[in-house]
Amino acid sequence: MANARLRLADARLVLEAALGKADEIGQPMNVAVVDGGGHLLAFARQDGAILGSIDIAVRKARTAVLMAMTTEQLGVSAAPGGPLYGIEVTNGGLVIFGGGIPLTGQDGEVAGAIGVSAGTVEQDVAVATAGAETFSADGPAQPSG
Amino acid sequence: MANARLRLADARLVLEAALGKADEIGQPMNVAVVDGGGHLLAFARQDGAILGSIDIAVRKARTAVLMAMTTEQLGVSAAPGGPLYGIEVTNGGLVIFGGGIPLTGQDGEVAGAIGVSAGTVEQDVAVATAGAETFSADGPAQPSG
Amino acid sequence: MANARLRLADARLVLEAALGKADEIGQPMNVAVVDGGGHLLAFARQDGAILGSIDIAVRKARTAVLMAMTTEQLGVSAAPGGPLYGIEVTNGGLVIFGGGIPLTGQDGEVAGAIGVSAGTVEQDVAVATAGAETFSADGPAQPSG
Amino acid sequence: MANARLRLADARLVLEAALGKADEIGQPMNVAVVDGGGHLLAFARQDGAILGSIDIAVRKARTAVLMAMTTEQLGVSAAPGGPLYGIEVTNGGLVIFGGGIPLTGQDGEVAGAIGVSAGTVEQDVAVATAGAETFSADGPAQPSG
Repeated sequence: MANARLRLADARLVLEAALGKADEIGQPMNVAVVDGGGHLLAFARQDGAILGSIDIAVRKARTAVLMAMTTEQLGVSAAPGGPLYGIEVTNGGLVIFGGGIPLTGQDGEVAGAIGVSAGTVEQDVAVATAGAETFSADGPAQPSG
Repeated sequence: MANARLRLADARLVLEAALGKADEIGQPMNVAVVDGGGHLLAFARQDGAILGSIDIAVRKARTAVLMAMTTEQLGVSAAPGGPLYGIEVTNGGLVIFGGGIPLTGQDGEVAGAIGVSAGTVEQDVAVATAGAETFSADGPAQPSG
Repeated sequence: MANARLRLADARLVLEAALGKADEIGQPMNVAVVDGGGHLLAFARQDGAILGSIDIAVRKARTAVLMAMTTEQLGVSAAPGGPLYGIEVTNGGLVIFGGGIPLTGQDGEVAGAIGVSAGTVEQDVAVATAGAETFSADGPAQPSG
Repeated sequence: MANARLRLADARLVLEAALGKADEIGQPMNVAVVDGGGHLLAFARQDGAILGSIDIAVRKARTAVLMAMTTEQLGVSAAPGGPLYGIEVTNGGLVIFGGGIPLTGQDGEVAGAIGVSAGTVEQDVAVATAGAETFSADGPAQPSG
């Protein structure tokens, strides 16, 4: 894949895969997909997902792009005693628990990220993973022609 | 329609109608749909839509809910010499030009709003109107059973 | 009256007088009363008052205390060409149209303010005036004993 | 109870019950009641309650709506080592200690919340509980007719 720029078509595939997983496990979710600049591309809140998780889902995706790692990985470093303790107050507020996963292109660049929130952290991670795996498998949509 | 609560299914119909209109006029757009509390339900940014309009689209939708009028109508009152001149600095930042339209249920209550941004204001209004008309025509999705 | 400190009992008299006036004119309102430091003392949102006016009501009251004048008076100076043009972006956001009125004690000090929003500016001013007049007439509640 | 929308009459019953409890324990309090979208409906600050708790009371109520749980419950998950450690920097600032309690309608939906602050956390919880119990007992006010 030459072009790491995330398109709406990519974002929507990722979003739908995540929403499908949420339906499968029976937990309504907020799902956000951002591009490689951390800017929102696609979002959906399923009926019943808590309101506070709208912001958290978007922030998880943004955090994963800004730090180029999962929010779960960041959480390990940001824990009390960890080397990045306190980092969550930077960048207008980062999220340091699981549910944000970078979408990495075949060129190894971070093309975007997915953020999921509203369930347990384990459920959030499972749903975000389902979305991210769709991207890894298919890569970004190819420009036509 | 008894239930003015906006559901994801409603929001997605509105979103798709707006995106279709944007395709039709050939102007990539940011489209946001919020519920009656101003909270995001669905969002999409079409390829090529400017980044600054992500926030503007969401804010237009939120403004339309908070003020229970279109952002175009608010803009008339908020113009220099108008009765609400300066209102845009309240509520964390309102938008006072066209592109935000309330979604009003058959009970007359504001069930949510659509916000569109990235084209000319005229284009934004046309695309937001296409989304809002879909809602007026169909009303919110009926709960099953 | 020796004590210009606004008490909850004072604030509630002002609030109720304003709510009564709002009922009388048939326009549901957001009404806020702040103390002489601009800090919220009492608030009520009547059923049907628009959501965006919660923040505006509180901000009108706070503006009236901070500037020691009505928001209507401030609006004259803050209009294009006026000496305070642009002042609304200071202090985290001021309101420069009518509906905020200082509550002035018998010692001439600003003891607090009332802010009203959700109707036309004329209605907001009428309701805020009804609240403020109650205070002027009665003054702050006397400490017992 | 068919209608989970919180009305001012509901909010005031909750507020008064909380203020009464505060009087009973002799600790002046800030008490806020918000609707199901997290928007302020009613507020009172008792004479002597600290100023910093105005914002905390409102934020506790908002947090309880956004997360659909008490702030005390959220605090357990948000503690160091907990699954939601760091969540307080999201949503513009959440409160992760006791004193915010959702008001849940008979339909199981979060209709709003009460937030109380100014005493010890134990006192805040006791006062918020007194307010919330009034709601559970009576439910939202019924529309007339």
